[in-house]
Order: sequence, then structure tokens, then C-alpha cells
Amino acid sequence: MRFGAAYYPEHWPVERWELDARMMREAGFNTVRMAEFAWTRLEPSQGEFDFDWLDEVVGLLGSNGVRTLMCTPTAAPPGWVVKDSPEMLPFFEDGRMVNFGGRRHYCPTQPRFRDHVERIVGAMGRHYAEDPDVIAWQIDNEFGCHQDYCYCESCQLAFQVWLQSQYESLDELNSAWGTDFWSEVFTSWDEIPAPRFTSTAHNPSLQLAWRRFYTDVWTNFYTFQADILRESGVTVPITTNLMGLYPGIDYYTHAEALDFVTWDNYPVSFPVPADNYTSALNCDLMRSVKDGAPYWVVEQQSGAPGWQSIFGRTGPGYIRLMTYLTVAHGGEGVLYFRWRSCRFGVEQYWHGILQHDGRPNWRYQEVAQVGKEFAALPADLFSARTPAQVALLFSHDQQWAHQIQPHVNGFSYLGEQLPAYQALRDAGVDVDLVNEESDLSKYRILIAPVWELIPSDMAEQVIEFVRQGGTLALTFRSAVKDWDNVIFEEPLPGPLRELLGITVDDYDAIGSQNITAGLQFSGKLPVTGNPGGTLWADVITSEGAEVAATFTDGWYVGRPAITVNHFGIGQAWYIGTHLEGEFWTPFVNYLLAQQHLPASLQRSAGVDIAHRQGERLYTFVLNMKPEAGWIEIPEMCTDLLTGERLMPGRTMLEPYGVRILA
Amino acid sequence: MRFGAAYYPEHWPVERWELDARMMREAGFNTVRMAEFAWTRLEPSQGEFDFDWLDEVVGLLGSNGVRTLMCTPTAAPPGWVVKDSPEMLPFFEDGRMVNFGGRRHYCPTQPRFRDHVERIVGAMGRHYAEDPDVIAWQIDNEFGCHQDYCYCESCQLAFQVWLQSQYESLDELNSAWGTDFWSEVFTSWDEIPAPRFTSTAHNPSLQLAWRRFYTDVWTNFYTFQADILRESGVTVPITTNLMGLYPGIDYYTHAEALDFVTWDNYPVSFPVPADNYTSALNCDLMRSVKDGAPYWVVEQQSGAPGWQSIFGRTGPGYIRLMTYLTVAHGGEGVLYFRWRSCRFGVEQYWHGILQHDGRPNWRYQEVAQVGKEFAALPADLFSARTPAQVALLFSHDQQWAHQIQPHVNGFSYLGEQLPAYQALRDAGVDVDLVNEESDLSKYRILIAPVWELIPSDMAEQVIEFVRQGGTLALTFRSAVKDWDNVIFEEPLPGPLRELLGITVDDYDAIGSQNITAGLQFSGKLPVTGNPGGTLWADVITSEGAEVAATFTDGWYVGRPAITVNHFGIGQAWYIGTHLEGEFWTPFVNYLLAQQHLPASLQRSAGVDIAHRQGERLYTFVLNMKPEAGWIEIPEMCTDLLTGERLMPGRTMLEPYGVRILA
Amino acid sequence: MRFGAAYYPEHWPVERWELDARMMREAGFNTVRMAEFAWTRLEPSQGEFDFDWLDEVVGLLGSNGVRTLMCTPTAAPPGWVVKDSPEMLPFFEDGRMVNFGGRRHYCPTQPRFRDHVERIVGAMGRHYAEDPDVIAWQIDNEFGCHQDYCYCESCQLAFQVWLQSQYESLDELNSAWGTDFWSEVFTSWDEIPAPRFTSTAHNPSLQLAWRRFYTDVWTNFYTFQADILRESGVTVPITTNLMGLYPGIDYYTHAEALDFVTWDNYPVSFPVPADNYTSALNCDLMRSVKDGAPYWVVEQQSGAPGWQSIFGRTGPGYIRLMTYLTVAHGGEGVLYFRWRSCRFGVEQYWHGILQHDGRPNWRYQEVAQVGKEFAALPADLFSARTPAQVALLFSHDQQWAHQIQPHVNGFSYLGEQLPAYQALRDAGVDVDLVNEESDLSKYRILIAPVWELIPSDMAEQVIEFVRQGGTLALTFRSAVKDWDNVIFEEPLPGPLRELLGITVDDYDAIGSQNITAGLQFSGKLPVTGNPGGTLWADVITSEGAEVAATFTDGWYVGRPAITVNHFGIGQAWYIGTHLEGEFWTPFVNYLLAQQHLPASLQRSAGVDIAHRQGERLYTFVLNMKPEAGWIEIPEMCTDLLTGERLMPGRTMLEPYGVRILA
Repeated sequence: MRFGAAYYPEHWPVERWELDARMMREAGFNTVRMAEFAWTRLEPSQGEFDFDWLDEVVGLLGSNGVRTLMCTPTAAPPGWVVKDSPEMLPFFEDGRMVNFGGRRHYCPTQPRFRDHVERIVGAMGRHYAEDPDVIAWQIDNEFGCHQDYCYCESCQLAFQVWLQSQYESLDELNSAWGTDFWSEVFTSWDEIPAPRFTSTAHNPSLQLAWRRFYTDVWTNFYTFQADILRESGVTVPITTNLMGLYPGIDYYTHAEALDFVTWDNYPVSFPVPADNYTSALNCDLMRSVKDGAPYWVVEQQSGAPGWQSIFGRTGPGYIRLMTYLTVAHGGEGVLYFRWRSCRFGVEQYWHGILQHDGRPNWRYQEVAQVGKEFAALPADLFSARTPAQVALLFSHDQQWAHQIQPHVNGFSYLGEQLPAYQALRDAGVDVDLVNEESDLSKYRILIAPVWELIPSDMAEQVIEFVRQGGTLALTFRSAVKDWDNVIFEEPLPGPLRELLGITVDDYDAIGSQNITAGLQFSGKLPVTGNPGGTLWADVITSEGAEVAATFTDGWYVGRPAITVNHFGIGQAWYIGTHLEGEFWTPFVNYLLAQQHLPASLQRSAGVDIAHRQGERLYTFVLNMKPEAGWIEIPEMCTDLLTGERLMPGRTMLEPYGVRILA
Repeated sequence: MRFGAAYYPEHWPVERWELDARMMREAGFNTVRMAEFAWTRLEPSQGEFDFDWLDEVVGLLGSNGVRTLMCTPTAAPPGWVVKDSPEMLPFFEDGRMVNFGGRRHYCPTQPRFRDHVERIVGAMGRHYAEDPDVIAWQIDNEFGCHQDYCYCESCQLAFQVWLQSQYESLDELNSAWGTDFWSEVFTSWDEIPAPRFTSTAHNPSLQLAWRRFYTDVWTNFYTFQADILRESGVTVPITTNLMGLYPGIDYYTHAEALDFVTWDNYPVSFPVPADNYTSALNCDLMRSVKDGAPYWVVEQQSGAPGWQSIFGRTGPGYIRLMTYLTVAHGGEGVLYFRWRSCRFGVEQYWHGILQHDGRPNWRYQEVAQVGKEFAALPADLFSARTPAQVALLFSHDQQWAHQIQPHVNGFSYLGEQLPAYQALRDAGVDVDLVNEESDLSKYRILIAPVWELIPSDMAEQVIEFVRQGGTLALTFRSAVKDWDNVIFEEPLPGPLRELLGITVDDYDAIGSQNITAGLQFSGKLPVTGNPGGTLWADVITSEGAEVAATFTDGWYVGRPAITVNHFGIGQAWYIGTHLEGEFWTPFVNYLLAQQHLPASLQRSAGVDIAHRQGERLYTFVLNMKPEAGWIEIPEMCTDLLTGERLMPGRTMLEPYGVRILA
Repeated sequence: MRFGAAYYPEHWPVERWELDARMMREAGFNTVRMAEFAWTRLEPSQGEFDFDWLDEVVGLLGSNGVRTLMCTPTAAPPGWVVKDSPEMLPFFEDGRMVNFGGRRHYCPTQPRFRDHVERIVGAMGRHYAEDPDVIAWQIDNEFGCHQDYCYCESCQLAFQVWLQSQYESLDELNSAWGTDFWSEVFTSWDEIPAPRFTSTAHNPSLQLAWRRFYTDVWTNFYTFQADILRESGVTVPITTNLMGLYPGIDYYTHAEALDFVTWDNYPVSFPVPADNYTSALNCDLMRSVKDGAPYWVVEQQSGAPGWQSIFGRTGPGYIRLMTYLTVAHGGEGVLYFRWRSCRFGVEQYWHGILQHDGRPNWRYQEVAQVGKEFAALPADLFSARTPAQVALLFSHDQQWAHQIQPHVNGFSYLGEQLPAYQALRDAGVDVDLVNEESDLSKYRILIAPVWELIPSDMAEQVIEFVRQGGTLALTFRSAVKDWDNVIFEEPLPGPLRELLGITVDDYDAIGSQNITAGLQFSGKLPVTGNPGGTLWADVITSEGAEVAATFTDGWYVGRPAITVNHFGIGQAWYIGTHLEGEFWTPFVNYLLAQQHLPASLQRSAGVDIAHRQGERLYTFVLNMKPEAGWIEIPEMCTDLLTGERLMPGRTMLEPYGVRILA
């Protein structure tokens, strides 16, 4: 288990370093992240390097048992680099150039900038390749942050080259994208534009291809640096820090290039639980993009975050609770951001563990308590896997397609994922996120809201999944388009029509007029209350599917709104409108019961449950509320945090309290 | 009568064309619009033309009785054209360039772009000049859409040249515009700027001149193409598709260049009647800009519209109802947009008659019903004229002046037109729209809200109109400025002061503080309720006018708010504040009664009435409500849609039902 | 006393001038401001000057007793100047260039533009240096209006040069700004950027330095012109017109260069008192930036203001009331803006005394009444000083720091100043505004809300102020940073910790979640009601301070929220949260009583009181309400406006009535 913080020794007097090292050791730290934005300190002019100060602090910390996650500092190129190579400055799609003076003022495809990167990364790699205190490397920082993509000439050219690797010919591309629309047929590769500002919009197929291209650009920029480190003799693991639900990069694809996943976690809502669901979804995604492998959080919120203004809060108990949430969902490392609040620069109000004054404070005490607890937990807990039997399809390609064309005012991809995910969390089951390339065979249930794009080889896999007994639940706008973002020519839901046993003849974007469509449930589902559909209403004809609910409003009154098709030995559900928890909670519980998945522990509201399967099954119990809670213990077990033996029956939880049962 | 749809055969497999042709014929189609955005298909590289595919489809449709409205494809220049002539890309006023990748990425004044246009239009004209299946031409598509005006160097130069044709000398221009303000006196024509981004605003006179200039630019670009077609041998009528209430172009002026008016009609509110008034106003304007000549709607909404998001809805009955509304106000052609929803490109969600899957659906059935009905209606109905005796002054020059300086928060030109227009529609009378160059002599009533700019020769015409017995109604901000957007030096209402019998000494922009000013009515008008004025209060002295209402609030309490002057044998009203239907409905009915105009049929709420005078008088009765309605028949007549004889007394209307009485 | 208006004779026919001059004389005018935007009229082409028309009108007015405040016309460079020197056009930070066509389209650092300025200003100076009718000069107009700063290359270079005058070395600058953050260490002066668009934000220290730099740029541009005038022989006073609370320029620093302060005053809220506090605060600032010297208002609102839309109102009594407010707070000159509403150009709706038609109107009568009254008032009244014993720290450096980082959503510098200022006005005491360079010794009370930046030499002065018996009141976010916008390394409140007797251990940005924190008052303060804190909650430890209120919410329940430290023979208050009038009104009254400052006159709500100390003490009594008010006269006195002797007891005030008691 790696435990520690981001540390910027260059921000503090040399005389302070020793005290910092001692305080870290006393808090149970074994890891710090360093050098992240220290390029000018390390290379004050071209080819002149200064590693002395960093050697000193790496050694000082190492002698205190604190090892270093070393960073390449390329996210903040120095002024002298920009002066030398101004063509490296990136452009927004509307033509605005990003100037020097913040960070990330570079285009990742610019050759002259990459020359500078090669020099500094190579020098660092060679210098620290043999250093036993350097246990891993982070490349750059938060690709895509502040600006998803650059739209300069270099990027447009790279896009044209990349497309040649994706399509056999220009004819194939023209055909796949439907460029006959608005006379956009390309007669030469160099006519294809980056999606820069127009007075209308670019072809949705091109827009989707651009996002896929840029995932490859960022991955390529990562690999470019990782290769330099390897060539310099670096042998320890290499990574870069991801950003959870950040939508600019397909992290499933990107993570393939990383040795392990690290990410930055800012669950800024205090007091919880304003939205702890999103926090957990972040964790589940970061675990799932690398096939369930444990991750490190390299920036775990330890104070109120803010740039110009502070937009979050903290308070006693919050940091510890969120740290355990991070671990419960698959973490094997937690580094807080940051050790100490910075006195200058843009992040003066992005608070660290210590305040600007550097005195030990309540946050330091809380972190030190966690350090002590971690040291006492069994080692296998941190590398244990999440035993999920339910999968939620969460795909960046889908998210992009929905961003490009959000269908109706108020619609968003996350807004369609969350009601299902929240119902699953409330049911206490573990959830893996999957995308179109994932292996579905290990799951019993797959929920795939607004699964719009169906790659040609995916339909067969999902059909087989149901045939073999799996439960599938799709919602409106599923199976509408092919992988190039083009609508199927066959009736909807395209290649899943037989599986679902329905045809979607038409639809009504009721969200455009903020209309709620009433539903009549057949009695099959244990839905009480009277949930109504919003945003969208599909006009469905059943071709064999059982009708679980019909519309009671609109010109399609009486027509199916929710259907289930019995296919093979499984079930395929289709939900033709947007619904919230009033539907999703009973629906999810129904599906779980149908698949005979175990019911979770009984507990008070606001208590979150997650499991990790190591040598034993570890059950994390997190009370998200500022009041006491309880949980019903089914059989005698141990609370690993306190060593307490818990007897069957009701056990109390403190406000923001955590128990780990084994 | 032309009936059909926009058709894009290049979006669909050749194998489908025959089925489309047959389905069109069966739906009663006789016209399609084609080739609108097919430049690259027709000219894949410079000077290399391919008309074979288009010949085939024109012929195939022709053999099914469906003729072609052929389009020049210049609204979507190909990538190879842009690559050849990048200086053709247009600029927004803030300096942003429009990139290739959407549509309308051209500047209409750019010489090199016009060379490309000349080549493709000439080739098309020569190819189809003799084709009997091509019955008319549309040039380009929706001038001004997405971007009213280009602000590039070429346009700035053209503006300077145009101004030399409008003013005898630079001294005259300086004097007319008052360039002494802020030291903008021009000492050379080439100092005059296009109204590009400044940190304040441009001279309102220059801003108004720029808009007038650009109407001429678009008209010139139209004529440039029409002349090429004529020179190529084309003899059939030529047009371009207008956009109803689109405010960027003075359509009265622009339409003079067209052989006939076509326009695009998207009454997106379903269920009606959310605002069917605006739909009717669109129609009335499109009829009026060409002196009442029947128009074609070449894009009639046939499905939910949407780009990235769907912002409207449809449902059974809506398409037919709106089609008849289109005809009721003067249409002789209706082409739906579009035949079939496109599978790719930006307009995937701008739905056509058919869904993407191409199967016959309820919209197809509804359209086919209209086709059958149209075939049975008397031919003279479609060419009949609207017998209006009431005119509403609706002028683009006024709209521009009010856009440039909207007086007070919440004010808009349309917001001042609609209360009067709605009252007229509710009264069941036909309304022509007129502008400053229209002949007023055929009308009995002229309503001219916020008629700010008075051209020097117009005052006399309107004075004569009243003197001869006409009724004139003006509202606040009328007769404030001359034709160059400069405020009169004489007291307000300037040259209409004697006609109106008042002086406007001062005014109070009460809308700046959302104040409502109370009114006391004299009893002259049958106003019940207690309407209050908003936005504006004129401080009026009567110079002989009768006072119909006074203010009961403000420092001008007791002073006139509404006046009427008896002048010649007519009446001139002045309404010194903004009022809504509570005032306008009784006021309009009072004016109609004073002029002895016939009262319209008694009917249930939401039933719209319009007339066309052909061999007989045709009365269109449209029930805008989703519930049944009724109408009181005064004497026996025939419903031309059903052939039914209707006896005097109450006759029912179906939900969204239509009757045409003769 | 100077009394008159802004006059633009070039906007009106020569034949009108004589009538204007006579009407001005009859209204009691003795001064007009002219030539402000008349560059092209005065210099129609380079080096060709025409002063004849201006000579004529200066002379004509002079012969009517109306003297001229002459303006340099550089705020509106002619088209021919821009055509000659297009590089003079300024840039916004996002890269947009300001085009010719409005006003202020120049960069003040551009050498070629300054050549043009030198020529016109020199010519005007030489021409009017000896003219006895020209009694003062105004340079340019409203520096910074529409665009605070230009970000062109010339300005960036000037910034780099300026920084070399502010820091001894680049090392010192790097250290002072903490450029180690995000690797922004500068290795050469020419790497330092103007704060142009980035995808994040610039270093707060750089951002603050840029604003200070630009105060010097504007002052330098002023001095550049003033020097030319002096060299041309001008001997009368020179000024430029400031804009009250405009935050772009440090007016304390800027005003040092002016011979006297003039400013533009638009208290646009009618009917009062929507916010007459802001109007008074404007006046107090304009008096205070020049050490209390009387100012001229050279643009006093005389009609409804508006550009494209009118955003304010006027009505009888308002102009006179606001004129006396202007005088009450320290004016010795009032010129209305403008003589007559302009018929053309951008400011058609920025109304003057006369309407566009030029007839005498109610506003002219009201102004003429003021003219008559002014003539009868004692001359020493207009040069009398404000006898303030209470100071409010109002500093542009603080405002900038808070703009750059506004801490939490809803926070603003003005929003923190106004509750304290309003309470002081309601208490009827005179208030000076001070900044960090002001002499505090003449005050008894200093209120300094959110006094974030503490220059190193200021802490000692304020400590001494309290030690000697002064009362100091600070609020949250005080003493957080040094003068370079860097957070203190010592615990907060930094160098004022001992003075305040507290430590601020932590804080909670409660405004980020719109939380109100309850307070428990100790009984020391006469606070009734139950005010709660918003926006911010400091977590305080008393180190000897008395606790006047504690928090009743949050994890810091029971900890101090408001403290007072008895230090020397004074008191130092600290208020750790945002509070409104429910707290500030009793708090301010408590402080005044503690310092034995005299209670103000008893009066009805909405009556404002201000004093000037000349040969006698003049007490201005202004009834801000549209209803009658009253005031309690303590001893017999005279109303200088009416000559009435007022007996002790209640005296009535008319709606919007004014009395000046002596």
C-alpha cells in the first residue's frame, strides 16, 4: 500500500524539508509525488540541468522511509522553451491561441516541442534510473485538462494521417461518413478539416473520429515519453494520472498503454452525501478501465479546492471517509493533494493537508490516523479484486456521440447512467463498468442506458450474452447508429431488434416542451408510486416482447413504453423513456432477484457497501451521513479497523464512520 | 398547384430510387426539389462534371409525373473549392473566420469564389435548360442563414463602393450620418469601416446602412446566378428560398429580383396553438413581399426538427393542419422537408416524412391524404388572392433600427407587432403587410406599431391616406427619426405631428425598472379590464387630438396616453405605451366597426379564419385545437374538402380539423 | 463654483449657437466643457488645423459669461489617423482587436499614435494658451472606459520594462511572485507575459502587478499630454475626468498627477432611493483620492442614460436632489451631461438637459433653479472641507486582489464595503475613504473590510493607530497576504495577529454551498435580531481577544466568530464572517458611541446628512424619498436655500427636498 501526498519541495525553504520529512514519517507516509511542475528548476536553460536539490530531497525523504513517485514536468513548459518554440502554443477550436502564463500551453503533436520534451525526460530518466528511492514514474499531468484538444495545423495534418490508418480508402471514408450530405465529399485526404469553428456544425461522424483520434494523440504523447524513460534505463512502473469521469479521452484505450492506473480524486461535496454516487462511479470507472487492477489515487482531496474561488468544503471525518471509499472500490495507493497549501501561484486556495502556515492541524491528525490504520490492515486487502456480477455499459464512444448530438434539451449521457448506477449502489451490489470491447461472459446482468452506437461485432456478443441466460436492460436511443455515428437503415433498434422483440417506429422528444408522459404498469414489475417518463418517448410496436408498461399520454397512448423479451434463457429489457429512481430502484431489485444475486446487508439509509475479494471477502461499510447509522450483521465477523468482534444483530456506525468486515 | 418534397437521391442507394418515385406518385406528388447541396457530386474536380446520376433520377421521377425544382448547389462549396480559394471563407464581425466543414462557408462578394460559382451554375444551366422535367430553379439556399453578413476586407470595400452610389458626396454622407459625433467624420471613402467589433458600438446610421447594403449584396449574388442561368438558356422561373420572419434581409426589396417567392416554413410548435399567430404572420409576410402573389413553401415541416438536439414535435393531424394554414394565406405550392430523414451528417434529427428506415408511416399517410385532397380542389383556389383591407406596417428598415437600438430592456420589433396582429387574426380579418414603399390606397386601416423611421416622401402619403378616410394607428417611438436613423430636430412626432394632433415632449423608459403605468380610459374605446402600459411612457401634449386614455401613475399623471386626431375624413391614433391583447382586441374591433368592415364568422376559440378570392370567395376554417370546435354558418355553402353541403347554423370541426367553405 | 454643461457646438447649426449661449446665461451657467471629441473638426488632415469655429463659440460663450473647460480630443482618433497608423488599434486579452468605428480605439503606449497625439495637443495648447475664456483643460476622456487595458505587443514590452523599475532583479521578482509554481520561473525579462488568454489563469502576483502597471500607463499617458500643454504655454489647471468607483485604475495614485479632480457622475436610479448609498460612496471616493480637495463633476446626469437601450430614468426633483448630493460630499463644480440630447451617433439616447428638439423643458427649468440657488449660496461653502473622523479603507490594490481571486461565489469587494458604509451613512457621520498610503492619525475609527494585502510598512502604522486609542474593525480575509499577493507564511492574520489577539487556524467557504452559519452574541454588542453569517466562516482561536460572538453551526460550533482585542488604549475588532445591516447598523453605532462621536440629527427614514466645514459648518439635509420627510432641529439655524430661520423642533422636508443648514 502506497500512502502519502504530492510534495513540492521547490516551493519551500530548504530549511523546512527536514521537518516535512519527519512529519510525513510520523503520519505513516511511505510515498510522495515530486517534480511535477519543476522543469525550469531542473533545466534553467537549454541543456543545463540541476538535479542537486531534487537529489537532496529524494534522499532525505528516502532516509525517512518515504519513496518517490517521480514526474516528468512537461505539463508546464518554461518561458524559455516557449520563447524558443512559439509554434508549440495550442489553439482552441474557435481560433484563440493559448498563451504562456498558466500551464498546459503546448500542442502534443508539435515536433519542436517534442524535441524539448525528449531532452528533459531523457535527462531525468538517466539521472534517476538507478535511484532506489524512485519507485515509479508519472508522465506529465492530467492530459486534456483545461483543453481537451488542440486544433492547430499540426494536429489537423496528424488527423489526416491518422484517418488513412483507419479507412482503407477515401471512398470508404466518404461512404462511411455520408459526406454526400452538404457536399462534403473529400476528393483528397488533405481536404479533411479538424473540426474548427464553423457557423453550423461538423459532420457527426467526423466529430466522433476526431475524438477517437485525440485519444490516440494523448496515448502517443504518453508512449513517446515512456519510451524515452525506458531507453534511459528506467525499469520501475510508469503511469500518468487520469481524471475519473473526464470525458475527453477514452480511458479504456488509453490505460492499455499504462503500467498501472493512477488518478486524481476530488469528491468535493461536504457534508456528504450530497452526491457520493458520483465519487463511487469515478472509482469504479478507474478500476474498470484496466480490467479491475488496483489503482493509485495520486491526488486525493485533503482540503477545500478552489482556483479563483473555493468551490468545495471539508470538515472532520470527511477526508478519512473518502479515503476509505477510494480503497473500498479498488485502491492500493492514496496520495493526498497536497502536503501543504501553496503560498503563491494560481492554486493558493487549492488546499493541502497543512495550511499555508505549515503547523500540524486537524487534517494532519486525521491523515495520520488513516496512516496508522492502514499499517494494521492485512496486505492482501489492498490488492484484492472487486467481485462484480453486474456490469454497467459506460463507454466514451457513446458519451461522445451523445455530446455531439444530445437529442433533446436536458439530456446527457451521465444523466442517463446515474439513475441506474444509484439504484445498483443502493442495492449494495458491486458494479463493473464495461465498454464495447469488454468480455461480458463473467456478468449476470448488463445495464446499458442509451447505448446508441453498436459496432458490427458487438451485436452478436450481446445477443449471445442474453441467449446464455444473461439479463440485458437497454433504454431509449439504444441501437440507433453504427460505429461511424450513422443511423441504421433498418428499422430501430437496428441489429438488436430481434433480441428485444420490438420495433421503434417513431419517437417524440417530449423534453423539448418539458412534458411528462404518464405510464401504466402491467403488474409485472413491483413499481409502486407513479413514475412518469420525461425527455423522450419511443413509439414502440411489440414484435413478441412482453409489455411491462404503456404510455397513458400523447398520440401513442396505449402503446408500449417498457418491454421485456424472453430470448434463449435470458431476458432483454427495453425502457423507452427517461425514468428516475422511483422506477430504477424497484426495477434493479427485481433484476437482481431474478438472477438470484445475494441481497446485501440491511442497513440505515446513507450507508454504502462495497466488497473486495482477497484471501477473505472484505466488506467495506461506510456511513455517508453526519448522524449515527447502523448495519445488521448476519454472522459473527471482525471489524478490521478496530479489531472488534461483531456479533449477529445490529451494530452501530459513528457519523461518517467506517467498518471493514471480514 | 405544386406538391411534393425536397429529395436528395444522392443520399440513398440507386436501387431505392424507383420505390421512392412510386411512393411519391401514390402520395399525389408532382414536384420535388433536388441537387441543393450536390456540388461535389456534380463537379468532383474543377471543370469535370457528372450529370448522369441526376439525369437518371430527374427522368425516373418525370416518368412518374414528378417534376423537378432544380437547385444551384452553391450553399455548400466543396472542400476542393475551399482548398483552391481559401480567401472565400467568411468572417464574423468579431474576427472569427468560418472554416470549411459545415455549409455556407463563403463570402458572396469574393471574386475567386464567384468564378467557381459561375462555372458550376453555367454548366448546370446549359445541361438542364431544355429539360422539360425541370420546371423551375432555386438559387443557393437560405441566404444569410447561420451568418447574416460577412465582414471580410472584400465586403468592407464593397460597402465603400456601395455608399458612393447612395450618397452624392462624402460631405453628404457625413452630414446625413452626423459623423461629427465621436469625431468619425470621414475624409476619404476608404476610411469607412464595416461594422466590425469595437469596444463600444458603431454609429447607428452606419449600422443601418450596412444592413441595407447587405440586402443588395445578397440580391446581387442572386442576380449574378440568375443571369448565368438565363445566359445558359434557362427559361423557366427562377427563385431562391426565403425564411419568413428572418430579419437579416429586406425581403420586399430582395423579392423584386425573384420570379416568384419560395420560402421555408417551420411552425415547430406542437401541439398547436402554442403560437400559430407567428406561423400565420410568416405566411402573410411571404405573400406580401411580392405584392400578394402566391408563393411556394419549398420546405414545409414534416417531422420534428433538430440539429444536435430536437427542438420541436409533430403528431397526427399537425402536418395537414399546417399545410392548409400555408395554403390559406396564399400558397400555390407545398414541398415538404424532406422526403426521408437523413442517416448521416448534421441533419440526422431534422426529420422528413419518412423515418430513416424508409417504411411508409403515419406521416406518409397524412401527406398522401393531403395529396388526394389537393387534387380534388378547384384549380383557381391556389392562385386566388387574399382580399385584405387592413394593412400592418412591417418593415425591415424599422426592424433593423429597433435591433440597433432597442430602446429599453424587453423591447423588440416583433414584440410590438404581435399584439396588434393577434388581435386582427382573432377578429378574423385578412391582413396584408406593407412597408414604406407600398401603395396604401387599397386599405381602410393601417396599423403601424413603433414606426420609427419616416422617409421624407412617406409622411405625405400617410397624411393623404388619413385625409381620404383611412384609419391610422401608431404607437410610441413612431416618427422619431429620418431615413438615415437620425432623430428629427423638430419636436416629436416629427412630420406626423399635425396629423396626430399631439406633441411628445418627453418619455420615460419605464421598462428599465419593470414598472407598469396605470391608464384611465375616457369611455371612447370599449376597453374593459384594466390594462396597464409597460416598457415605455410617452409624455404627450394634445395639440387638438382627442384624449382616449390618460396615465394614472408617474410624474405625468393625468397626461394623455392614447389619443385620436380627426383629420380630413379619417382618424389618426397614437398609443403612447406598450399594451397587450387586453387593449388591442377591443381596440381593433372598434376600428373595424368604425370602418364598417364585415364581422367574421362566429366560432369557438382557437379557430383561425382566412380568405382567398378566386372565382369564388374561399373561406379557410382551421381548428387549431386538439379538441372539437365549431363554426356558425350564416348561409348555405359547400365544404370543398368533403363536398358536404353545410346548412346555416352551427357546424362542428374535428380536432385539428379543416374546412374550406365556398 | 463652476456651473454648466458639456457642450458640443459641432453637433448643431452655427445659427443655433447664440440661442444656446443666451439660454445658458439665463440658467446661471458660467462654464461649459467643449472639444472633447472634435479631433477631425480641428485637424481634418494631418497638420492642417481649423480652430475658427471653436474660437467663435468660445468667444460667443465668453461674452455671455460662460467660460470653457477645453478638452484634448484624443479619446476619439479620426479615421485618417487610424488609416495612417493601424498598429495603434488596441487588443483585448483574448486576442480580439478593437476596430475603428466607436471611440477609444487606441493603445496608449503605441509610439506612432503618441506622435499624432503630440501634434494635435501641441497645436491646441499653443492656440488656446493665452485665451482668457479657457479656464482649465481636460485631457482625453474616461481612461479605461470600455476597455481597462490593452494587451498588444507594445504593452507587453512596456510591462517588462516597468517591472525592471519595480524589482531589483529577476531573482527578486521570481522570489516575490513564487514563480516556482507551475515552472514559471523567468530566466529573462522578455519571457514575462502580459496576462493574455490562457486555458487556466495567470499567477495572481503577475495579475496584480499588471493592474498596477496599467495605472502607471494611464498616468503616463495623462502626463505626456499635460507636459505638452505646459510646454505650449498653458498655465491654467489641467485634469482628466475620472469615473468614481470604476475599478480599472488606482485613482489615489492617478490623481496625484492631476491639478484637480473631475469626474463623471451617473446616479441612474430614479425614483430614489433605490441605491443612493452608491452615489454617495462615489462622491466620497472622488473627494478622498485627492486628500479631500473639492472636485468638479464634469458629467452630472441630467436625463435618462442609454446607449442601445435606456437603462435609467429621471423625473422632476431628481436632478436637483442629486446635484446637491454631489455638492454635499465635496463638489465645487457641476457640469451637466449634456446640454442637449444628440440627434445622431451612438449616444442618441444618452439624454441631456434639453431634448433633441432644443425647446426649454422641465429639466431646463430645474437646472435654472439650481443655478439661481447656487448664485445665492456663500462662496466658501463650495470650497469647504468634509470634517470626517471615520475612515473606510477602500483600496484599489485590495479590490484587484479580490477580483483576481474572489474567494467564493457571491463575494465581491464592493459587497463587503457597502454594509459598513451604509451603516455609517445611516448614522449620519461623514466618512473619508483611505488607502494604504493615507495618514490615519486624523481619524478615530478605521473600518477595513476584507483588508487582504498588508504592505510591510502598513502593519506598524495601523498597530500604532490602535495603540493610540483608535478603533479598528477588520473582517474575514484580512491580513492574509503580502503586497505581492502572496499568502503570509506565518499563521493568519499575519502581522496583525498580536494586534487582534487571535489566530485564524482555518476557514470554511460556506458560500460555496449557500450555507448560513448561526451566531450567538455575547451581549457586549447591542445586536438584536438574529443575524447569521454567510459566504465565509473563519475558524478562530482567541489569543487574548474578547469574544463577542461565536458560531452555533458547523464543525467549529462554539468557536469565536467576532472578537475584540483591547490594545494600547484602542480596540481592534475582527469579524470572521459576512454580515449585513442587521449587524452593521448596531455595530457602527456602538463604535461611534465608544469614541464619543456626536450623534447626528434625528430624522425620518431616507433623509441623508452630510457636512462641510467652511467659515461655518454647513449641514446638508437631503430627503431621498418621494414623500415628505422631517428633521429635528436642535438649535435655531438658517436654511441657506430659502433664507428661512428654523426654530428648534421638527421641520418638514418636501419630497426630494433639500435644506442646507448653517
